[in-house]
Amino acid sequence: MRSVARAISLVEDGEAGARALIAALFAKTGKTLVLGITGPPGAGKSTLVDRLAAHLRRQGKTVGIVAVDPTSPYSGGAILGDRIRMQAHATDPGVFIRSMATRGHLGGLAAATAHVLTVLAAAGKDVVLVETVGVGQDEVDIVSAADVSLVVLVPGLGDEVQALKAGIMEIADVFVVNKADREGKERVVAEIQSMLSLSSKEGHVPEIVETVATDDRGLDTLLAAVDRFLDQADRSGQLAHKKRSQLEQQFRDALTTRLMQAARERVLSQAESKRLVDRLAAREIDPFSAAEEVVTKMGLQA
Amino acid sequence: MRSVARAISLVEDGEAGARALIAALFAKTGKTLVLGITGPPGAGKSTLVDRLAAHLRRQGKTVGIVAVDPTSPYSGGAILGDRIRMQAHATDPGVFIRSMATRGHLGGLAAATAHVLTVLAAAGKDVVLVETVGVGQDEVDIVSAADVSLVVLVPGLGDEVQALKAGIMEIADVFVVNKADREGKERVVAEIQSMLSLSSKEGHVPEIVETVATDDRGLDTLLAAVDRFLDQADRSGQLAHKKRSQLEQQFRDALTTRLMQAARERVLSQAESKRLVDRLAAREIDPFSAAEEVVTKMGLQA
Repeated sequence: MRSVARAISLVEDGEAGARALIAALFAKTGKTLVLGITGPPGAGKSTLVDRLAAHLRRQGKTVGIVAVDPTSPYSGGAILGDRIRMQAHATDPGVFIRSMATRGHLGGLAAATAHVLTVLAAAGKDVVLVETVGVGQDEVDIVSAADVSLVVLVPGLGDEVQALKAGIMEIADVFVVNKADREGKERVVAEIQSMLSLSSKEGHVPEIVETVATDDRGLDTLLAAVDRFLDQADRSGQLAHKKRSQLEQQFRDALTTRLMQAARERVLSQAESKRLVDRLAAREIDPFSAAEEVVTKMGLQA
Repeated sequence: MRSVARAISLVEDGEAGARALIAALFAKTGKTLVLGITGPPGAGKSTLVDRLAAHLRRQGKTVGIVAVDPTSPYSGGAILGDRIRMQAHATDPGVFIRSMATRGHLGGLAAATAHVLTVLAAAGKDVVLVETVGVGQDEVDIVSAADVSLVVLVPGLGDEVQALKAGIMEIADVFVVNKADREGKERVVAEIQSMLSLSSKEGHVPEIVETVATDDRGLDTLLAAVDRFLDQADRSGQLAHKKRSQLEQQFRDALTTRLMQAARERVLSQAESKRLVDRLAAREIDPFSAAEEVVTKMGLQA
């Protein structure tokens, strides 16, 4: 447990020291099931994730939980969330929990999340649950690192919050209507069905599963729907395609970071960078021409 | 108007053709005031932006509106928004309106937004209003391209939505409590004040301005608060610092895109890229080592 935590702390920022570790661990990955869970605030995602983790533990599976909050610029909220959750799973070494917030991740939060997933996969976790709050592009990027994406909605949220659905509609492999013992459940289900009927998305139509996470209700049904999705995605080649896209993205992120490092090492000293920004501020040069200057000095001009 | 629209369509995707245009236009920029407007869905941002635009027009200023919706993966919503707004300002050639959604922007939405701002600034707009929905990292990046950031809140939104505030708290230069004729106004103002008293942010304490945008109430007060912010930010050097950071970011985005292009031209053909992803999928190589291979082939190894 502690070594996993140390490894994660090391890889989160993507610095050079971290890369050697990721490189060493990468060969051990590829066997973990990654479930992405997203949806608007108030949908009960954290409870659902905690109960799913406990449920999977009862099935003898080891579990990692990564809670990502792109709206939190500081780690305060994330650390508080960690502590509350730690209590629920404190006596179970089979559950590893990590919270991540927005700032200070070289290459962005989605890239940092991918690194954390590498560590947990290499540590042999059977299932990793990646929970993310909200519905912006960050969340879409983060959830795209999952094998299966669950979008959690809930009866009775106002129109303002329901409006958030549009952005995550297309990434849902399975819809979860949580707090399904509340009034308004039928309307949420009908709204999802209506959106699905309008969708131009091809292939598998996402199932809609009702849960009451606080009572452990619907968890078996949910995991069965996940299995059905994985089964058809495997047969259709969609899963293999998704996994390749994830690897391509990790490679692109690594290459971008490495190329910028090469630029800094070779021609873009702090002083040179300052000179370029001075010329930009004076409108003597534009950003693309400044980039071209650097590329030319690196011997890479077209 | 049409040529501005054409220029924007060209620069939005950041492709090579666009760069020459940005390069040509860049020298004409730097004189436009960019106001960023963000906040949760339902806060009345669009109405506020429309009314501010009309108000600024009455002062004889030319105005651009850029509405960015990172939660919309497709342009459908954005185009609909465009049309509704076009009607309000249809007879006024002094207002230019453009909506942008998430997908298909090389280098990301924030970079694409910066390019659109370059075009509008070069077109001589006195003020550009950049409106963005939601509160993720995307929105923070987009609003960071503004000279002044307004965060719009509203009485009576549920705790779920108010919880979204945390992420945008730190970027607010001025808080707007819109729909201030509604019940619960005092509570929102008190909540903001309470957050501000806890904040460790140095310097200027953001003003809180009450508006009822639908009735044009509070717009003068709001613009006066914006002026006061700009005045002190100018004197403290904060504004110059912010503008330099924006230029640095544009330069970094341009350089990243250009370096990846050089990699593709020189060593990373589609076939080579496929071979690398095959080896990643087989866990024969890891993302960082794959990046190092490319960098070495480009002659850039450390």
